[in-house]
Amino acid sequence: MSVTAKRIVLAKRPKGEVTPENFRLEDYEVPDPKAGEVVVRVTALSLDPYMRGRMDDAKSYAAPVEVDAVMEGGTVGEVIASNADGFAEGDVVFGMTGWCDHAVMSAKALTKVPAGVPPTAALGVLGMPGFTGWHGLTDIGKPKAGETVVVAAATGPVGSMVGQYAKHLGLRAVGVAGGPDKCRHAVEHFGFDECLDHRAYADGKEMRKAIAEACPDGVDIYFENVGGKVLEGVLPNMNTFGRIPVCGMIAWYDLGGLGMGDGPGKDQLPRAWRTILVNRLKVEGFIITDGWHRLNEFLGEVAPLVANGTIKFTEDVAEGLENAPEAFMSMLKGGNFGKQIVKIA
Amino acid sequence: MSVTAKRIVLAKRPKGEVTPENFRLEDYEVPDPKAGEVVVRVTALSLDPYMRGRMDDAKSYAAPVEVDAVMEGGTVGEVIASNADGFAEGDVVFGMTGWCDHAVMSAKALTKVPAGVPPTAALGVLGMPGFTGWHGLTDIGKPKAGETVVVAAATGPVGSMVGQYAKHLGLRAVGVAGGPDKCRHAVEHFGFDECLDHRAYADGKEMRKAIAEACPDGVDIYFENVGGKVLEGVLPNMNTFGRIPVCGMIAWYDLGGLGMGDGPGKDQLPRAWRTILVNRLKVEGFIITDGWHRLNEFLGEVAPLVANGTIKFTEDVAEGLENAPEAFMSMLKGGNFGKQIVKIA
Repeated sequence: MSVTAKRIVLAKRPKGEVTPENFRLEDYEVPDPKAGEVVVRVTALSLDPYMRGRMDDAKSYAAPVEVDAVMEGGTVGEVIASNADGFAEGDVVFGMTGWCDHAVMSAKALTKVPAGVPPTAALGVLGMPGFTGWHGLTDIGKPKAGETVVVAAATGPVGSMVGQYAKHLGLRAVGVAGGPDKCRHAVEHFGFDECLDHRAYADGKEMRKAIAEACPDGVDIYFENVGGKVLEGVLPNMNTFGRIPVCGMIAWYDLGGLGMGDGPGKDQLPRAWRTILVNRLKVEGFIITDGWHRLNEFLGEVAPLVANGTIKFTEDVAEGLENAPEAFMSMLKGGNFGKQIVKIA
Repeated sequence: MSVTAKRIVLAKRPKGEVTPENFRLEDYEVPDPKAGEVVVRVTALSLDPYMRGRMDDAKSYAAPVEVDAVMEGGTVGEVIASNADGFAEGDVVFGMTGWCDHAVMSAKALTKVPAGVPPTAALGVLGMPGFTGWHGLTDIGKPKAGETVVVAAATGPVGSMVGQYAKHLGLRAVGVAGGPDKCRHAVEHFGFDECLDHRAYADGKEMRKAIAEACPDGVDIYFENVGGKVLEGVLPNMNTFGRIPVCGMIAWYDLGGLGMGDGPGKDQLPRAWRTILVNRLKVEGFIITDGWHRLNEFLGEVAPLVANGTIKFTEDVAEGLENAPEAFMSMLKGGNFGKQIVKIA
């Protein structure tokens, strides 16, 4: 059963900001599944900031996407042909198929989405982003009731997990987001104590004052997922022995082109280093694969909280594979409202 | 018994590089010791990079020295009058008397220097600098045999402790120092596997290549005590899950005025942050008072190693209190060779 399908490949590497020319939509033949393989009809693609990193060929924790290869990405979909034990037509699965509408996959690389959960939850709140927030907050942030956590992209799937789970543990949660609507949503829907609109602050200095006002007892944990102006504003407000899990820095993916600050000045690193020293901060980079051993613990603890509504999630849905590049570029600029997915077929 | 003594006070705060005008030598009357106090005749003053920080009034982990107040500093000396139980004339003591030749001190703020150790060891290898190196390396660096550690100021009292104790634990130790004489001393006297002369490398890029060659298996621990060009060169060579104890950044105390690099460029902080993320580094600031609970453990373990010659120390001795400012300014530029002390009286 051969299928003519569509996929989006990396046409060329971006220089700075991502543009439509970096992508190409093309047809391709999905081969028949060999022994142990299945064919998946993709129903939804996840768009995530880490994909920006994969478009560069700089050294990173994962290999870059090759030019002319399919863009990397997680999806949910339905098995439409199986040559693998344990998988049958109609199974709903999660896998890293890339940006496409059909894919042949080794069954070993697929996970069945549990019944009773909306399939797209596997892309967000109970998927990589949610787990990233939970793992970084708990394992590196070491949260204690009564402390204060700050996280940016507060309505996104990572930030909203950090804020909600911190509240669940009894912390003060202060979010940062772009625009009054997102800030309202962070407070009203996700339960953040406060949410600051980074667009309202011209630079790191103004951000610093706003953080100080929103965090009268200082900041104990800064969950770092944006860098830029937010980092500049939070660092001087860190309490002694504060913790900074570092999982991303979207503001710097293009080095300053994202409207969250014009990049740091000449003395930024010395100043940051000095703050790390003076306040005895612990700054620790992590990527989610380092924490896989805690995945079952995460699902066991958080899935019930999602089911009973303690932990909420918000999705921003684009329609059609061909619109994925535009949705991705918009997301990198903060244009999404909640977890960005693309519905396919 | 009133004594007319000499002391050096902070005449005015430095703007950038420290100059002679920042200091003033003056006479003062040492009052008679009250109950619980003793009079100390200072025999040697310790000069340490942290003193540069005390001269500024920026927020730090310790209060700045007030203008017109005596410069802060640790000394060893002899008790010449005692009004305190347990202290007698002739006792050899360590204390934070400041830059002076006589001081009245509460006996509680003094420690007797153990017999059988040269008194000035209490200022270096078995004092704050040695303990700083040992504590940062063991508690934060978490060294494992076979790993590689890099430390700058390799012939100084902190760096030489880091290198020697790392070798004692079975690590590869690569030092950085200023000039061929110090580098040779680091290797021949302190037993570093290699020592790089930072003056031979124009910038962080060249430093990076040199570090890569000296550390064929990458860097697992970078003991950060200088910042600047060395940090720029080491960061890209850090191995995954590397550790960076941060205890100082002498190259940046004047923000680039110390000949160890012209200060970082605009994209330094993003690049550092990216490396922390990609390599999942742990960067942790510490100051020595956080580790006091391990001081007895340190002395119990390291004093015998000093006594039997496993751990060596080198002193650079200036003569006379009036020459302390010059020796201090020279030390900040790397002009000292070993632990800088000033002999007094």
